[in-house]
Amino acid sequence: MESFFRLLEKRVDDCGSLLCVGLDPHVSDLAAPTAKAALDFSLRLINETAPYTAAFKPNVAFFEQFGAEGWTVLEQVIEAIAAASKSLRSEIPVVLDAKRGDISTTADAYARSAFEHLKAHSITLSPYLGRDSVEPFISAAKNGVFLLCKTSNPGSAHLQDLTIEGSGPLYLHVANLANTWNTRDNIGLVIGATQPEALRKVREAVPNLWFLSPGIGAQGGDLEGALQAGLRKDRKGMLLPISRGISRANSPAKAASDMRDAILQITQKIR
Amino acid sequence: MESFFRLLEKRVDDCGSLLCVGLDPHVSDLAAPTAKAALDFSLRLINETAPYTAAFKPNVAFFEQFGAEGWTVLEQVIEAIAAASKSLRSEIPVVLDAKRGDISTTADAYARSAFEHLKAHSITLSPYLGRDSVEPFISAAKNGVFLLCKTSNPGSAHLQDLTIEGSGPLYLHVANLANTWNTRDNIGLVIGATQPEALRKVREAVPNLWFLSPGIGAQGGDLEGALQAGLRKDRKGMLLPISRGISRANSPAKAASDMRDAILQITQKIR
Repeated sequence: MESFFRLLEKRVDDCGSLLCVGLDPHVSDLAAPTAKAALDFSLRLINETAPYTAAFKPNVAFFEQFGAEGWTVLEQVIEAIAAASKSLRSEIPVVLDAKRGDISTTADAYARSAFEHLKAHSITLSPYLGRDSVEPFISAAKNGVFLLCKTSNPGSAHLQDLTIEGSGPLYLHVANLANTWNTRDNIGLVIGATQPEALRKVREAVPNLWFLSPGIGAQGGDLEGALQAGLRKDRKGMLLPISRGISRANSPAKAASDMRDAILQITQKIR
Repeated sequence: MESFFRLLEKRVDDCGSLLCVGLDPHVSDLAAPTAKAALDFSLRLINETAPYTAAFKPNVAFFEQFGAEGWTVLEQVIEAIAAASKSLRSEIPVVLDAKRGDISTTADAYARSAFEHLKAHSITLSPYLGRDSVEPFISAAKNGVFLLCKTSNPGSAHLQDLTIEGSGPLYLHVANLANTWNTRDNIGLVIGATQPEALRKVREAVPNLWFLSPGIGAQGGDLEGALQAGLRKDRKGMLLPISRGISRANSPAKAASDMRDAILQITQKIR
């Protein structure tokens, strides 16, 4: 069975991009504070940006806030991504941004919810509960996870930067753990694009893992610096989620295609 | 405004119990694999056990696995708890077991979902993203959180037991952070009842925080040992969630009342 990262790499080749369009229907960006408006917002983004994106990242919180109706919309959004994939003849992976993390039968239920019910291809998870909390999500190679490693917020220092005795910062320890757990080519890491030092250190430690690196655009991350620090030798290995930088543009299609080109130019410059 | 832990302490006094009934509609325990059966399962538990429990803990995963319908059921379950509170004339707090953890506007959306939409009183959170990821959940004193500290699963060792340079294990560091963040009397900790050493160490470090301590029953935790290690001097400070040990009993009412009595006997013995 094809692994999640083989699927993602195919899509990256097909669209020539490391861009990941985030689907974050903030209430303040909607025509009305309703689940229906969140659906319209998401469908417009999918239709306009599908040709230029390597993946879509719906953020569960912005659907869940509408309760059951929001959950129905989330299902419809993921179906729309599958339909867009079909018409492009290139499967666009869905990264379910859910930051889950639980154990035992609860983790099993979250995994079923993400992969069987919602039909996402991958999910973001917290590493705090250790390997057995991750296992139900990675037991099939085709399902992928991105483990939180070094995030882009100020509070990321409170735990992630702590120095582990006889080792480096906690985030680096998490990266090394993820690397040893990655026996099926389906574990990646979340490392903020605003954290070039962490990107560099982790890339050195784990040359092959994929990074999901939010923070370009609204959060002020520097695109070139992030790519310089985090790209793999094959010029892949980083997925760059952008949400408001695209959804708030007059033309999301143009914003996505411009971002694809900007990423391409930089990756081609990097040796 | 009354803090979350004042509300919980009132309820503990009213029912004479530290028991927390977990609402975990495992598919294998349902009459049919449907959201409707999960509702029936939960309503029966609420009706039978409400007089004996200090709190109810619905586990979001087991509702979410049914998609939008499951979300509707979760709303109905929390409404039923409010109705049971009314008829007992004693408010039973809801601990939404969701293990969320995200930043910025996403954390805001999860907080709105838990406290405004679902009307839960408190939520379980991961500490991995640091203080700003917790802040939206604790900004009102009446809303509570339980931060994951030392969990009951084998993988809890992978991160939580790591030794922080110049300090102790990571879980103890998390407990101390939580204590400094707890300016509104609404932060508690999740520490497995299967971890008496962690319970003892953390209780020594933070004499006043509440613990949510799962693991009695199905996970094999020892009730007396856990209470000896984790109770506060006022014989409160620990909430003991039990799910299958009650839901699978022939009479959940009797199982809950027996468990209340067992806890009472032990707490009265402890000096």
